[in-house]
Amino acid sequence: MSAKPFRLAVKAIVFDGADRCLLLRRSATNKNFVGCWEWPGGKVDDGEDFATATLRETVEEAGLQIELIGLAGVTDFEMPVANIVLLCMEARIVAGELRLSPEHDAAEWVPLPELGRFKLLPRVDQFMFAYAARKTTPA
Amino acid sequence: MSAKPFRLAVKAIVFDGADRCLLLRRSATNKNFVGCWEWPGGKVDDGEDFATATLRETVEEAGLQIELIGLAGVTDFEMPVANIVLLCMEARIVAGELRLSPEHDAAEWVPLPELGRFKLLPRVDQFMFAYAARKTTPA
Repeated sequence: MSAKPFRLAVKAIVFDGADRCLLLRRSATNKNFVGCWEWPGGKVDDGEDFATATLRETVEEAGLQIELIGLAGVTDFEMPVANIVLLCMEARIVAGELRLSPEHDAAEWVPLPELGRFKLLPRVDQFMFAYAARKTTPA
Repeated sequence: MSAKPFRLAVKAIVFDGADRCLLLRRSATNKNFVGCWEWPGGKVDDGEDFATATLRETVEEAGLQIELIGLAGVTDFEMPVANIVLLCMEARIVAGELRLSPEHDAAEWVPLPELGRFKLLPRVDQFMFAYAARKTTPA
């Protein structure tokens, strides 16, 4: 096993009023995975609470103020200098208007069963599909 | 849904050299769930990294210095003033000798398939059993 440090990152699954979640497309300003779609999110800063980080990243990347409403789950992947633990939270919009940062160049509101139409971010795509399947299967 | 804040807590699944994990029994000093067995862990302090919190809690509750080796998963439950997101990490012992805090009055090293012999902490027991089933099922 790796002795790399574990770092926490977060993603927000932001739902609109029609059960659609926000997907953002990575722009050419990114070093990798250009054109892949993802939920807003990013690294938790040193000393920052994970919930605060989720809200901050969503404002930065989508211009939206959100409220966390539930836990979606967690996944992990290895990066060159750290193991990333990615905590995914469900959220709803409280205020704001959709406005992208340079990091993304397109946004779409997508019903969970339609995630398969998009080229999703590797490392996280399996989690995204599993989450969608779990949420859309009648209990 | 609740507008309660989300708080992060951690648990360490500490393995010995024989694939057994450490269970601690909650002592009468606890306000609730006395006699229930649990993995070491607790709340992440303000400004504290989740990995640091996991190591700190394991030293405090078990006297053991550990190294994180992997992600086990996440679960959540509601408390009176907050929604708790409980991140569970796999770990191995680096140094130290088992020594309990007043919070616990017994410890056992338990193979995952034998978790069912113990009265586990409610809220976390379903996650613990699911994790044990997942880890002990051949892929």
